[in-house]
Amino acid sequence: MTTKQPNMDKVKVFALGGVGEIGKNMYVVESGEDIFVLDAGLMFPQEEMLGIDIVIPDVTYLVQNEERVKGIFLTHAHEDHIGGLPYILKQLSVPVYGTKLTLGLVEAKLKEAGIHRSTKTVLVTRETVLPFGANKVSFFGTNHSIPDSVGIAVHTPQGIVVNTGDFKIDQSPIDGKHTDFARISKLANKGVLCLLSDSTNAERPGMTGSEKSVGHEIDSVFAQAKGRVIIASFASNVHRVQQIFTAAAKSNRKVVITGRSMIKVVEIASDLGYLTIEKDSIISIDQMNNYAEDRIAILTTGSQGEQMAALSRMAHKAHRQIAIRHSDTIVIAATPIPGNERSVARIVDLLMRTGAEVIFGQRKVHVSGHGSQEELKLMLSLMKPKYFIPVHGEFKMQMAHKSLALEVGVAEDHIFIVEKGEVVEFTDGVAKRFGKVPSGNVLVDGLGVGDIGNIVLRDRKLLSQDGILVVVVTISKASNQIISGPEIISRGFVYVRESEQLLQEANALVKEVLAKCMQEKVKDWSSLKSNMRDSLSQYLFEKTRRRPMIMPIIMEI
Amino acid sequence: MTTKQPNMDKVKVFALGGVGEIGKNMYVVESGEDIFVLDAGLMFPQEEMLGIDIVIPDVTYLVQNEERVKGIFLTHAHEDHIGGLPYILKQLSVPVYGTKLTLGLVEAKLKEAGIHRSTKTVLVTRETVLPFGANKVSFFGTNHSIPDSVGIAVHTPQGIVVNTGDFKIDQSPIDGKHTDFARISKLANKGVLCLLSDSTNAERPGMTGSEKSVGHEIDSVFAQAKGRVIIASFASNVHRVQQIFTAAAKSNRKVVITGRSMIKVVEIASDLGYLTIEKDSIISIDQMNNYAEDRIAILTTGSQGEQMAALSRMAHKAHRQIAIRHSDTIVIAATPIPGNERSVARIVDLLMRTGAEVIFGQRKVHVSGHGSQEELKLMLSLMKPKYFIPVHGEFKMQMAHKSLALEVGVAEDHIFIVEKGEVVEFTDGVAKRFGKVPSGNVLVDGLGVGDIGNIVLRDRKLLSQDGILVVVVTISKASNQIISGPEIISRGFVYVRESEQLLQEANALVKEVLAKCMQEKVKDWSSLKSNMRDSLSQYLFEKTRRRPMIMPIIMEI
Repeated sequence: MTTKQPNMDKVKVFALGGVGEIGKNMYVVESGEDIFVLDAGLMFPQEEMLGIDIVIPDVTYLVQNEERVKGIFLTHAHEDHIGGLPYILKQLSVPVYGTKLTLGLVEAKLKEAGIHRSTKTVLVTRETVLPFGANKVSFFGTNHSIPDSVGIAVHTPQGIVVNTGDFKIDQSPIDGKHTDFARISKLANKGVLCLLSDSTNAERPGMTGSEKSVGHEIDSVFAQAKGRVIIASFASNVHRVQQIFTAAAKSNRKVVITGRSMIKVVEIASDLGYLTIEKDSIISIDQMNNYAEDRIAILTTGSQGEQMAALSRMAHKAHRQIAIRHSDTIVIAATPIPGNERSVARIVDLLMRTGAEVIFGQRKVHVSGHGSQEELKLMLSLMKPKYFIPVHGEFKMQMAHKSLALEVGVAEDHIFIVEKGEVVEFTDGVAKRFGKVPSGNVLVDGLGVGDIGNIVLRDRKLLSQDGILVVVVTISKASNQIISGPEIISRGFVYVRESEQLLQEANALVKEVLAKCMQEKVKDWSSLKSNMRDSLSQYLFEKTRRRPMIMPIIMEI
Repeated sequence: MTTKQPNMDKVKVFALGGVGEIGKNMYVVESGEDIFVLDAGLMFPQEEMLGIDIVIPDVTYLVQNEERVKGIFLTHAHEDHIGGLPYILKQLSVPVYGTKLTLGLVEAKLKEAGIHRSTKTVLVTRETVLPFGANKVSFFGTNHSIPDSVGIAVHTPQGIVVNTGDFKIDQSPIDGKHTDFARISKLANKGVLCLLSDSTNAERPGMTGSEKSVGHEIDSVFAQAKGRVIIASFASNVHRVQQIFTAAAKSNRKVVITGRSMIKVVEIASDLGYLTIEKDSIISIDQMNNYAEDRIAILTTGSQGEQMAALSRMAHKAHRQIAIRHSDTIVIAATPIPGNERSVARIVDLLMRTGAEVIFGQRKVHVSGHGSQEELKLMLSLMKPKYFIPVHGEFKMQMAHKSLALEVGVAEDHIFIVEKGEVVEFTDGVAKRFGKVPSGNVLVDGLGVGDIGNIVLRDRKLLSQDGILVVVVTISKASNQIISGPEIISRGFVYVRESEQLLQEANALVKEVLAKCMQEKVKDWSSLKSNMRDSLSQYLFEKTRRRPMIMPIIMEI
């Protein structure tokens, strides 16, 4: 390794994802020559990203500096923190560090992507300290809506850079593992140079509330339900899943699990000891008919209204094995992630129409996994950071988090609101803004990672609005004569059967334009094409007020 | 008019829109031979309705029975109650009844559509009673987020059918016009056979609160703002607009109006006396620079994050005359209509990034125009209807409204939850379900009303996901030989430049398929096309995991 002296004592902190947005968290701490990557998440596409499956951070900077990257250190196993790994590890061959459950879920993911053999994974605990030359990395336990989540501390010669990861402060955690106050205090005593903290609920006053309160509510729903209980939850919320199993046991119900990710998470979490399930409490769907309705609970995916998830299939009467009954009680134990409100509302609507009782919103069957204002302030007070960078949130959440930090006493010029790629550089313990590294959205569509950009998206958008019209004509180069066509074919524009006249007139128009061009001996196909496109576009807009994409094709023989 | 005896004493009630959805309200009361249409709204398209501008009700039933339709009776001038008129009146030549402001806004709309001359409009007031043979129609004043809104009573020989229209019960209305309790009581005394009532806020406990409370908040924002105030509101919320003008006057600010619909509504409402504005309180944008920042208020459209509205243009730095400044206070005096959350959040984000103060959600600068549970129960108690049909809402809102009616004492079998087109028929004052009339969504795209259906939408959806690939080949019929091509052109699929190899291989594959078909002397172009489509589709899916639409075109010479 070549060590460039000038960089030795600089510390740089920046985000490649997770700021100015909810999703694809990836934070980078650089100390001298060493680069530490914290999390590698994905984001689900926004509406205008038509046809895109997922979005991951642009890791150009990391690829360019691959030999300096010490590893990817994970806070917890949610998709917005680990979902980018299968794609990123194909470009970047570095070890992955995580706690037991996190690695368990990551390894399943890498296996699916066929890169589990080529990836080195390293198990850590709250106690682990990893030395890297002048730097070291340590962890501290937090509470979140998935077990085994940790915050990460990068100890640099200038001080400690801390990333909280996603957290809330749960005073009665399901697994009995409290936030690691002792370790946090120890970090504070040593001196936190810079804190990166979760801004998700920075606009929400008060405390978020314990996961245990959800347990009481679920218990009572299970006890009261006269028939089956069908309950949808995030698969990864293992604590919630545990409480559902506990409620089922208390109300003498067997549990049927449906939905691929739910089955997978229950399996991994049980194997690793994060779920305590009585041996005979799970039954298969086939066995369901051997039990009375009030002895059944169905645990399912689909709490976000995802079209292909089990709950959605039930709502659409398209689930092969489970049909909703009048007597069912259906519980959606989650709130919609912003953007999913409408699809969740639709599923709720369909479910209600079946006559079943639907519990969604009215009862406290969900609490957030992210701390509210009082918890965020407590974290700031505990950490006593010299500098503060609010992360994990949209701009307004970062700004709200800044206000909280000001309240707690962090100096205004010690708070940095950063965009993706914006570097905060520390020299002798003093921070300043220092340019940008490459950053942005990498769109994944099928097997293509980053091959879809604005032009393709713009075309998809155009196509989605008014469809397409293809005009083909075969022209003889020798005689400068039309041999065949013009033929006009459309998709997504009008009903062809009802628009025969329109299309005939369009055809006549194209013939006219062609004849004129032939007469003028236009041999430049591109101007011929743009003539056809312009006349046709104008004609169609006049007639229909629509602007389909027009694609003229000239076949030359 | 031919009077069919058997129908004489039947009363039928049904919805052509507005039930099971928010939007395109249209309710029908049939008494004997007379048909009364209550409202004619539009709905904004749902996500999956790609490229669609608006959605209106299917009025086939009304067109088929045109000579029996006595008129369209309007409750108020919101788009979801009047927006369908320009389209529906082209199919249905009937008079339109409405109050002064309602007709004022309707007439502007009809003028734009060029049908104001051919449409008969009839002005009504709260006091008007319209006789129609054995039936009559009367009105009663309500409070809503637009002035001059009324409920409608259709007096039939069997009793009165009442549609509340959109309402809340505002104890301190801005215009001093209280809900018409006396008239409502009179209707109740005569006997309300069936009540149709607004379900929008049926899930919301308590009372909605007075528009006046918003005024106090706006006053204080205007007083405190150090620079300009930019305030976005629904143009049609004339009371809100009035309060904004009042706040501006109190804080010594001149008002600049931007946004087409805001300018239009302020003009019409002032002309008709629904807005009281000091003569010199409005200034043009050009005059803005003659005033200090704290003497300016800008009233704008775009409270729903609409892309083309003035506020959105300001946020995107695309407004030609207004640039947001650091010192501005921007107020969004509305809540997002379900489905608009994300676009509003985006605008808020952009506005915040300018450094201006953005007030949205944190302060009470908006109240709903729809009554909450206590108001809905009060309406039920006042009307004492024999039968109840909750309307104006999604299924879950209708169901919540049903629960309220049960609480108030309406018998369960006297409450009908109906879908669009489902008829409730009354005979001798007794109701039962009675089949369906044609109903559904009519999609408007540009000039096309109802010419877009599932096939076109499905194509747009496909095109939007993975784009299109056009394959053209010219074949000689005589020699059964390929003369030109195959040529492959794609849009919205991949970047052509980066996918040359893929497209070359695809081309080679098509050549192979063609050669094979030629050899086998396949003369049936449709099987040739489906061969090409299948092979290409399979190949592209293997290589890219994408499924573009494939359009093979054979030019025959």
